[in-house]
Amino acid sequence: MGRNFYTPRTALLSSSSEPRIVIETLYPEVDCGRNAVKRILGDSFEVWVDIFRDGHDVLGAALLHRAPGRTQWSRLPMRHHDNDRWVGRIELDDIGLHSYSVEAWTDIFESFRREFSAKREAGFELTNEIGEGRALVEAAMDRADGEDRSAMHGFLKNFDRLSVSERAVQLLAEELRPLMARQASRGDLSRYARDLELVVDRPAARFAAWYEMFPRSQGTDPDRSATFEDCVRRLPEIERLGFDVLYFVPIHPIGRRHRKGRNNAVTAEPGEPGSPYAIGAKEGGHTTIHPDLGTIEDFRRLVEAAAGHGMEIALDFAIQCAPDHPWIAAHPEWFTFRPDGTIKYAENPPKKYQDIVNVNFFGPHREALWNALKDVVLFWIGEGVKTFRVDNPHTKPIAFWRWLIREVKAAHPETIFLSEAFTRPKMMKALAKAGFTQSYSYFTWRNHKQELTAYLTELTGTECREYLQPNFFTNTPDILPPILQQGGRPAFQMRIVLAATLSSAYGIYNGYELCEADAIPDTEEYRNSEKYQYKVWDWDRPGNIKDYIARLNRARRENPALQQFLNLRFYGSSDEQILFYGKMTADRTNIVLVAVNLDPFHAHETTLTLPLEEMGIGPEESFGAENLMTGETQEWHGAQQRLHLDPAHNPAMLWRVEPAGRKGDGAGRA
Amino acid sequence: MGRNFYTPRTALLSSSSEPRIVIETLYPEVDCGRNAVKRILGDSFEVWVDIFRDGHDVLGAALLHRAPGRTQWSRLPMRHHDNDRWVGRIELDDIGLHSYSVEAWTDIFESFRREFSAKREAGFELTNEIGEGRALVEAAMDRADGEDRSAMHGFLKNFDRLSVSERAVQLLAEELRPLMARQASRGDLSRYARDLELVVDRPAARFAAWYEMFPRSQGTDPDRSATFEDCVRRLPEIERLGFDVLYFVPIHPIGRRHRKGRNNAVTAEPGEPGSPYAIGAKEGGHTTIHPDLGTIEDFRRLVEAAAGHGMEIALDFAIQCAPDHPWIAAHPEWFTFRPDGTIKYAENPPKKYQDIVNVNFFGPHREALWNALKDVVLFWIGEGVKTFRVDNPHTKPIAFWRWLIREVKAAHPETIFLSEAFTRPKMMKALAKAGFTQSYSYFTWRNHKQELTAYLTELTGTECREYLQPNFFTNTPDILPPILQQGGRPAFQMRIVLAATLSSAYGIYNGYELCEADAIPDTEEYRNSEKYQYKVWDWDRPGNIKDYIARLNRARRENPALQQFLNLRFYGSSDEQILFYGKMTADRTNIVLVAVNLDPFHAHETTLTLPLEEMGIGPEESFGAENLMTGETQEWHGAQQRLHLDPAHNPAMLWRVEPAGRKGDGAGRA
Repeated sequence: MGRNFYTPRTALLSSSSEPRIVIETLYPEVDCGRNAVKRILGDSFEVWVDIFRDGHDVLGAALLHRAPGRTQWSRLPMRHHDNDRWVGRIELDDIGLHSYSVEAWTDIFESFRREFSAKREAGFELTNEIGEGRALVEAAMDRADGEDRSAMHGFLKNFDRLSVSERAVQLLAEELRPLMARQASRGDLSRYARDLELVVDRPAARFAAWYEMFPRSQGTDPDRSATFEDCVRRLPEIERLGFDVLYFVPIHPIGRRHRKGRNNAVTAEPGEPGSPYAIGAKEGGHTTIHPDLGTIEDFRRLVEAAAGHGMEIALDFAIQCAPDHPWIAAHPEWFTFRPDGTIKYAENPPKKYQDIVNVNFFGPHREALWNALKDVVLFWIGEGVKTFRVDNPHTKPIAFWRWLIREVKAAHPETIFLSEAFTRPKMMKALAKAGFTQSYSYFTWRNHKQELTAYLTELTGTECREYLQPNFFTNTPDILPPILQQGGRPAFQMRIVLAATLSSAYGIYNGYELCEADAIPDTEEYRNSEKYQYKVWDWDRPGNIKDYIARLNRARRENPALQQFLNLRFYGSSDEQILFYGKMTADRTNIVLVAVNLDPFHAHETTLTLPLEEMGIGPEESFGAENLMTGETQEWHGAQQRLHLDPAHNPAMLWRVEPAGRKGDGAGRA
Repeated sequence: MGRNFYTPRTALLSSSSEPRIVIETLYPEVDCGRNAVKRILGDSFEVWVDIFRDGHDVLGAALLHRAPGRTQWSRLPMRHHDNDRWVGRIELDDIGLHSYSVEAWTDIFESFRREFSAKREAGFELTNEIGEGRALVEAAMDRADGEDRSAMHGFLKNFDRLSVSERAVQLLAEELRPLMARQASRGDLSRYARDLELVVDRPAARFAAWYEMFPRSQGTDPDRSATFEDCVRRLPEIERLGFDVLYFVPIHPIGRRHRKGRNNAVTAEPGEPGSPYAIGAKEGGHTTIHPDLGTIEDFRRLVEAAAGHGMEIALDFAIQCAPDHPWIAAHPEWFTFRPDGTIKYAENPPKKYQDIVNVNFFGPHREALWNALKDVVLFWIGEGVKTFRVDNPHTKPIAFWRWLIREVKAAHPETIFLSEAFTRPKMMKALAKAGFTQSYSYFTWRNHKQELTAYLTELTGTECREYLQPNFFTNTPDILPPILQQGGRPAFQMRIVLAATLSSAYGIYNGYELCEADAIPDTEEYRNSEKYQYKVWDWDRPGNIKDYIARLNRARRENPALQQFLNLRFYGSSDEQILFYGKMTADRTNIVLVAVNLDPFHAHETTLTLPLEEMGIGPEESFGAENLMTGETQEWHGAQQRLHLDPAHNPAMLWRVEPAGRKGDGAGRA
């Protein structure tokens, strides 16, 4: 006790095997870091985490960020929010695979400073504390060089000549704080348990309108295949409709053995083209173009022409093979054979798919097969394709998708993969977590207010918001939902407004704009489906909703609020059939409200409750509401608005709300 | 294609680097396996997990369990619950550190069987399928030995002689299923990403009533210390009160330098004993008994005598040292010194604790210090102590506690550590996660219906239920809460009923049974606190609630429902001041309902809504309600019961509900 030895404050902090500082409950993190979080270029990525330690010392924390292709971490400041929760933010300027983590440390000088300051205010004797503070500066100087070292040297040179109270003032000087922060020892630097991954995609991953078609049915002769040239002729119209992505079902040679006929007949008649999903014939497989559609040069011209119209081409990636796919002869080891030596076709008893066979993903030649499939994707990327719609991914191993998407995006981070998995919810989410950029969804069958609200609340308000971006398809070649079969034109208008405004990414399969509703009775299948035959469409047939779609897509393009997904909020509507919701940008410069009559058969009347406070509008304030489908502007006042929606006239209203004084020259009330 | 080669079904399943089967979202799991889950001996431990894979095959899953001291895993069956969620259960027969995880595999034979059965029903030709099934049995036979091998051999011997339809029947025979399950290849056996830990404690970790006292104040002379012998004389009374744990504040020699006087005076007068938390003097430190209390032999006698009365002794583990603790001279490297060579006492500016100094947990001699602290705990375990109340653990590193508790419990799994951390919520939880068996809580300051309901719902209904067992103290030597200072005897009755029935573990600090409410004005401190002086209590003084406490503790012992914590449910009560809740055993053989008037000043009347359905009682059925404080039984009928609670008479009612026909001989209505 009588010995004079001093324990400098830094020595308290030598590290142990377990970090001294607790860093836990980090958000967002998916499956303990097993799966990446997703964001879009330009997003501000927020990270929240609990940071604390024993005792009362002051902590510092940094958000670690490693952008794609970097080997070094950059460190961004985090701030204490409340209740030991800290937050930091990364501005995302690069697409690709980012990493992030968190570091924290005890800020010895700030801890000293706070204690010192409290003691000084309490009028304590300070000699020992001044000695401690001086030792901290001295130790920091030993670590520093350059200007910091000079500044500290200057500080200490005069220090000892000063009076106790002058020294106290010096130690508490504001100028000393940044100097000491830069030269902090951080002896107990603690790091979050894991480095986490963040996939940043290009904006089309979140905001895009898709138009699906069978290129062979874009012509004028029902007895033969249309060509890519016919497709090019269709581009101006699809551009006018306002679509961003033109998605083609498979464009490859179609098998002849066990080819399916019209309406899924087990045997094709001569001249019938078969299903484009039965990929591969003697002409080639997944990297070959069906000769009837054109050549690879034609395809290149198509891609270029689409780009000229502001659109990109998305291809179908369907792994199954027709029985005469060249791979089967060249690589029988990639397939499964039965005891009698015949190849095993796809089946889900009692259903049979005799025109396709599946590959054996976990056979002994796994590596060669997986690489061959990757090469298919890379081939089309080489031909200018950046978006792939993947057929039935839930019947292929998750491990394969994780590997494939990671490999492809490492070299081509702009690539978008859309998962066509209409399957059980957890598999749907697992595919998104494994890397799919977008996912088909249950939207197609969600019709009622409660269903839509619950489903969208799950998608936007639970953990899957961090990795699953839905693409709301109103219909597909396989799905003509009952509401469209029964509800007529109002149902087509209503469902596309829902798809296009609830989700930032949505799609239609062609014919939708014509309100095509001819189904095989008691099924969701189209009658005379394009899947099994050539088809000629009258793109201007009466009753079409092309203008309606064009206006809707224009509203999406002109309103940034509609280009986001997670900003969706539901609002009060007194009628059980009228759904009311809205989206706004974070800065509230763009606010869109949407009301949809979900009943295609009857007019309904409702009282809407507008979110005045969220919109930054006072209860007594007037504000403009521009009808986005007509351009007409009205002046509104108060949170309650009465609305009559007659589906025969128009089942949905979209308004852009503009607080008065900014614009708003309309007259009358809603 | 013409080649005859067969891909046996097993080959589909050779493993890849990533498991084929997704096993995720396991519950319970704390912080990605970083922290253990806790349970009690005799509990049935349920594990829930998502398990799925691509395609339609049938899966099997096992819950892996490794009991303490075992090197081998045992495998328990899991069953599919719904929506890809599986559940398994472990019956906990040993205290100590258990491990658990999950395995899943594709059940090839069951997958074949389901498909085969569907095809057979659909009337398909089955030759190939029969060949596949036969190959599966053959492969299984090759793996098997003993009886299974013989059985399969027998199966195959006759098989080929049978007709196709007979062979189909054979392959679908029930007897074949367990045989094939036992000899399954499990080629794609997948394992959950982590092995998880489960701490199983003895029942006292969850169910115990604590009685805290200063052994030196259990005598009759206010001028000198009582002894362990005096404590022994107190045992029959504390047993009568119904307590299980007798908790002593520190029993070690008390420092003389800077000793505190009465009411926390900076200087002690001659003869004043000082705070028992200023541990250590020339007589010894943490493993020495204060000579005034007795000898180690006296202590042993006390432990034995307490056991004879059905109680165990809990000791305080307070790490700080008085300035004259022997460790300071022997191990100055364990402490912190100031620039002038004096030792640094504890402080939280402007507060000073001159009578104690803290150890330096992360100094260069960390290992020796940590081991010395562990040796203190082991020393008292050697003297028969199994429970430690730990003083202020939140000012010591989490890493230290994790290490200490793990080390101690590895050798002595019966040890219970109670964390006395009245600190921020996340630190409180972090200590529980690091290993503390029980935790002090905010209960002491939760008085209103909404506060109590919200807090208990957090404790029993969020993730912390998996690792944090609160011990509800009504008061402590440091905390005489305002409600007790102001509310008089009714408040003392009301708060102990809450503590004893909301939580399965609770405690009082002595004097509570006497309704001691003498505070230093505007503080929560007792006036003339036992912390700084000897005290003599009149244990029979008028107005005491000893009988009330005895009846309450008897009700706890006689009703298993009150011995659990997570079974707490709140029920409807129309009056804002009357809280109504209940607990029942899983089999509903024991049901206890509790109504408490939270207002100690006024009578209130309420309509209670009884959970008839949860209790298994029909809306028209009569049932008995035994008043657990009086033993009187009434007959009730219907969900609505009117209740008047006058705190002057009795602020709380406890009923044991017994559906009619089982008991119920009372008369009249509530």
